Amino acid sequence: MASVAVLGAAGYAGAVAAGLLHRHPEFELEHVTARSDAGARLDEVHPRSRVPLVLEEPTTDLDVDAAVVAYPHGAAAPVVAELLGRGIRVVDLSADFRIHDLHTYEQWYGEHGAPGHLAEAVYGLPELHRDEIRAARLVANPGCYPTAAILALAPLAREAAIGDCVIDAKSGVSGAGREPTHGKHFVTVDETVMPYKVGAHRHTPEIEQELGGELRVTFTPHLVPLSHGELVSCYVSPARELDARRAVEAAYADERWVEVVEGPPGMQEVRETNFCRISVHADPRTGRIIVFATIDNLYKGTSSQAVQNLNLMFGLDESLGLPG
Amino acid sequence: MASVAVLGAAGYAGAVAAGLLHRHPEFELEHVTARSDAGARLDEVHPRSRVPLVLEEPTTDLDVDAAVVAYPHGAAAPVVAELLGRGIRVVDLSADFRIHDLHTYEQWYGEHGAPGHLAEAVYGLPELHRDEIRAARLVANPGCYPTAAILALAPLAREAAIGDCVIDAKSGVSGAGREPTHGKHFVTVDETVMPYKVGAHRHTPEIEQELGGELRVTFTPHLVPLSHGELVSCYVSPARELDARRAVEAAYADERWVEVVEGPPGMQEVRETNFCRISVHADPRTGRIIVFATIDNLYKGTSSQAVQNLNLMFGLDESLGLPG
Amino acid sequence: MASVAVLGAAGYAGAVAAGLLHRHPEFELEHVTARSDAGARLDEVHPRSRVPLVLEEPTTDLDVDAAVVAYPHGAAAPVVAELLGRGIRVVDLSADFRIHDLHTYEQWYGEHGAPGHLAEAVYGLPELHRDEIRAARLVANPGCYPTAAILALAPLAREAAIGDCVIDAKSGVSGAGREPTHGKHFVTVDETVMPYKVGAHRHTPEIEQELGGELRVTFTPHLVPLSHGELVSCYVSPARELDARRAVEAAYADERWVEVVEGPPGMQEVRETNFCRISVHADPRTGRIIVFATIDNLYKGTSSQAVQNLNLMFGLDESLGLPG
Amino acid sequence: MASVAVLGAAGYAGAVAAGLLHRHPEFELEHVTARSDAGARLDEVHPRSRVPLVLEEPTTDLDVDAAVVAYPHGAAAPVVAELLGRGIRVVDLSADFRIHDLHTYEQWYGEHGAPGHLAEAVYGLPELHRDEIRAARLVANPGCYPTAAILALAPLAREAAIGDCVIDAKSGVSGAGREPTHGKHFVTVDETVMPYKVGAHRHTPEIEQELGGELRVTFTPHLVPLSHGELVSCYVSPARELDARRAVEAAYADERWVEVVEGPPGMQEVRETNFCRISVHADPRTGRIIVFATIDNLYKGTSSQAVQNLNLMFGLDESLGLPG
Repeated sequence: MASVAVLGAAGYAGAVAAGLLHRHPEFELEHVTARSDAGARLDEVHPRSRVPLVLEEPTTDLDVDAAVVAYPHGAAAPVVAELLGRGIRVVDLSADFRIHDLHTYEQWYGEHGAPGHLAEAVYGLPELHRDEIRAARLVANPGCYPTAAILALAPLAREAAIGDCVIDAKSGVSGAGREPTHGKHFVTVDETVMPYKVGAHRHTPEIEQELGGELRVTFTPHLVPLSHGELVSCYVSPARELDARRAVEAAYADERWVEVVEGPPGMQEVRETNFCRISVHADPRTGRIIVFATIDNLYKGTSSQAVQNLNLMFGLDESLGLPG
Repeated sequence: MASVAVLGAAGYAGAVAAGLLHRHPEFELEHVTARSDAGARLDEVHPRSRVPLVLEEPTTDLDVDAAVVAYPHGAAAPVVAELLGRGIRVVDLSADFRIHDLHTYEQWYGEHGAPGHLAEAVYGLPELHRDEIRAARLVANPGCYPTAAILALAPLAREAAIGDCVIDAKSGVSGAGREPTHGKHFVTVDETVMPYKVGAHRHTPEIEQELGGELRVTFTPHLVPLSHGELVSCYVSPARELDARRAVEAAYADERWVEVVEGPPGMQEVRETNFCRISVHADPRTGRIIVFATIDNLYKGTSSQAVQNLNLMFGLDESLGLPG
Repeated sequence: MASVAVLGAAGYAGAVAAGLLHRHPEFELEHVTARSDAGARLDEVHPRSRVPLVLEEPTTDLDVDAAVVAYPHGAAAPVVAELLGRGIRVVDLSADFRIHDLHTYEQWYGEHGAPGHLAEAVYGLPELHRDEIRAARLVANPGCYPTAAILALAPLAREAAIGDCVIDAKSGVSGAGREPTHGKHFVTVDETVMPYKVGAHRHTPEIEQELGGELRVTFTPHLVPLSHGELVSCYVSPARELDARRAVEAAYADERWVEVVEGPPGMQEVRETNFCRISVHADPRTGRIIVFATIDNLYKGTSSQAVQNLNLMFGLDESLGLPG
Repeated sequence: MASVAVLGAAGYAGAVAAGLLHRHPEFELEHVTARSDAGARLDEVHPRSRVPLVLEEPTTDLDVDAAVVAYPHGAAAPVVAELLGRGIRVVDLSADFRIHDLHTYEQWYGEHGAPGHLAEAVYGLPELHRDEIRAARLVANPGCYPTAAILALAPLAREAAIGDCVIDAKSGVSGAGREPTHGKHFVTVDETVMPYKVGAHRHTPEIEQELGGELRVTFTPHLVPLSHGELVSCYVSPARELDARRAVEAAYADERWVEVVEGPPGMQEVRETNFCRISVHADPRTGRIIVFATIDNLYKGTSSQAVQNLNLMFGLDESLGLPG
């Protein structure tokens, strides 16, 4: 039984990860840390987590086999480096190790806090990089939007079938984090849909990297009045003829957590599970291919995917302890 | 003071139209009709309408100057023909007279019930067809999605600046009508976003007609968990260089009900008003132009626009009695 | 391994019960039936159930050890009688066998379809009637409101401490069932709170029976804009002095699925679990005791409680296969 | 035409008041002030207000006939005193001048900042105190919950018919103000109902004062997942026999803004209007009287009621410029 810690467990993603690991048959959750709520029990701050551990002050002085780091980008990198230095395997939920190219990272995020570890980091999308994840000691857990968008589009990108691509994404509010802001106030979000970071969202380079690196996509996220769930609507102008639906089905024929369905998938169908649901459609009048993918941003989009990665890193059945 | 009737006043759109006309300084609302709720007072069925008139059985035997017809497509055409035959001016909320080309209509909607009146019908988007509306006796009130999409895109289409276009639309549930169905059940809609009629929504030809007729667009509506409000996110691959924002601003510089704003517009800002709010953005990495437009689907998207059209048809100040 | 069937599995409650039983370690779900969706796979109608069985036409000609009957009251009784006649143990989700007194039943519900089985039916609230449930072949699963209200109030009723009681209840829309009606249309429910069946809700006699039978309570349910979850706010004028909080804590000290908490409990904390959360407060100015209880109406309020009952009826660990 | 200022116009209530006064036929809105957003135009901060005035730094150095003060309690009192000192008539939205008894005020709110003005303040519920409001230079605008609760119960209190009373209130989130907090985060509020300040809400003494001062009520507010709207469910044990419905109808027979309706009233029916809707029911089994009242907390519950008061104070038609 491997021992694990979750650093930053008072946020939404950290709390879900802690809850899954606390009930995991092969991991022993030994520590949870938090800056703001240290001293409180995690199940007081997040009752649904049902984790009775006390939140400890942030530290890397931990004697565990693995850690999930749920820190903001920038803050994560040095902490990850310290943990690795202690021989602890890490799944990092931040963006700090997702972008392989340091220059691209710095364009979007500013200076990198531990560039020496970039080379060894593996992009933690099991359906694309399973073997590298198994061998990794540092896994960069994908962003929530990229998880859905890449799963939707990778089978087409692999076939060089994407000429051009618009990704119109819709996300519930938990994707924006737990810190109270005017933009997450109930009254602000209720009864509206709000596009944000138009032409400038930091998940864009991550999506492009995993689709091959050459393609430039238009990616526009929208905030919708619901708590969790994410849908990406991907509009592809095909670069060549291809049975898109068959290509997507073939890509995931052996994947337990990706389901290709007939009709457009709904967020409720994947809520609080590790599933991604995808459907593929043709627009007969323009020849465009339309791919929808939906996930729960806190599960397959973040925390249950982190557990999926940990399972792989520790040689366990990939699906152990995953909800759904 | 002109007398008016609203036929089909028990639906959402009919009730809003009746409410606006009941409080209009230059129209006298004399009759409201309904199939299912005949005999009840309109303000019992729709308290917010605050119209104390009794819903009458459906009839065209009316002695009024004008009528708003809020019937489903197919059912509307013969009724409109009868009203015109009695010398009553009509604003038709259905799709029956929006498509000029009979063949296109029949492809999307089936047989037409009064093709003889197609030629005289004017597409009732005042910002595009104000002068024709003034002279019309039959105005085909635009669909809700087309209202937003055409207002967003017409200034670019006019400049032949649209090479290619994806319209990803989000609508509240009132846009789907008042009849109870499984798809409008609260539990179905809550906590999800649902694409529907992918590649096949009947508002597509209407949008294309008003953008010039040659362009083919990909139009995908999504149902979102809110009551009213509509947002279209339009992704344009430009056919030529153009200052898109300036073109849109210029197009609406003198329009009271179209506001071009800096940031993405929110549905709350236009709720229960006749306003359309538009913003224009560039995606620097792909060169794409992104135009957002938001309306209240029951107001500028349907019923307050119908009153705007009636104002024009009767030589009144176009803005009389419009909310906002 | 006992074999089970769920009759009426296309409704919300039936689908949840089927999902729990399909994944239960000691039951084998062999049949699911439905009137309206027969022929479809249950996971097509209710994707979240993840039950790949085909819905069969309604029948009682089943060779199973137990059945969960998810029929409306009135329709359930004769079906339950037939199943019992075949030697099948039954958990009935309807109200048909909850009221011990035939006369009271008929006052509230009309004629009873199988009065001969009333005497053997056990009211299926395990925290109150665990031993009788273990021995029962017919368990009447409690209503959702009564589950929360009785768990909140029984410890006080047992001490004869309730002089007078108002129960103001709030429920999500799934409690009203899956059939589309105007009252469950998204637009009707959104942005409002609706009291209904004021002074006349059929759960009233059920609550009164379990609180001892003498007390008369005012019970007023309200529909709130959310999918599932239920909160009862109980206002008790005490009949005698009592440390109400201590009495409630003592009553549930050994109960796994009832949690007495400090602050008012939230629906999110129990969503999709078998938990009931209760808090007890004093109003210092009036001397009133206020007890809040929250459950998920489809889980502890219906279907996971049905599984809890089945576990008891089959001599299993009461908590086997229960979510939370 | 009287000139007015709104102090604290960047909050929800201030912005609504400013919008109504900006479009009022007999008032000229000359100044809007705000602490946090000074320098911005009000219609940028609150687009729906459609007030193009620039928010000024907080000041009382104003040359206006009247002011609406939208400050928190405690902060309001000294500002109100200064304004009165300058000869400016004031409607104060805070609690500072609602409680006539200084001792009671201080028990609930702490030290009072301008006790010398308590005696002249009039409680601004026009349906109860119309004549005094007409003569007042300081009106204490009622709290939102008290507005609904007092309108529901005053006709019974006046007849000494209330033996005992429980008020279970439900409010949308705008009632909690605009400042972002964890409790108003969308994810916290969504899909739950949250009782708060149980037995301790500061609106309690205000309700009791206006019901006669002797009665002690149990008042429990609940936060519900919607933006604006408030419902109070009042459970009255009658002190004597009375036709409650007739008493309530008689009390409001001549009131334009209070509507007594048959069935339970819905928040949507009064949204963004100055209406209060009330229904009266009997619980035949317990003899209890149940009264529901619903308002929009930002309109009749605060800002349109403030305008109603201003109309009275300036000898205008009470309903001038009120929405609905």
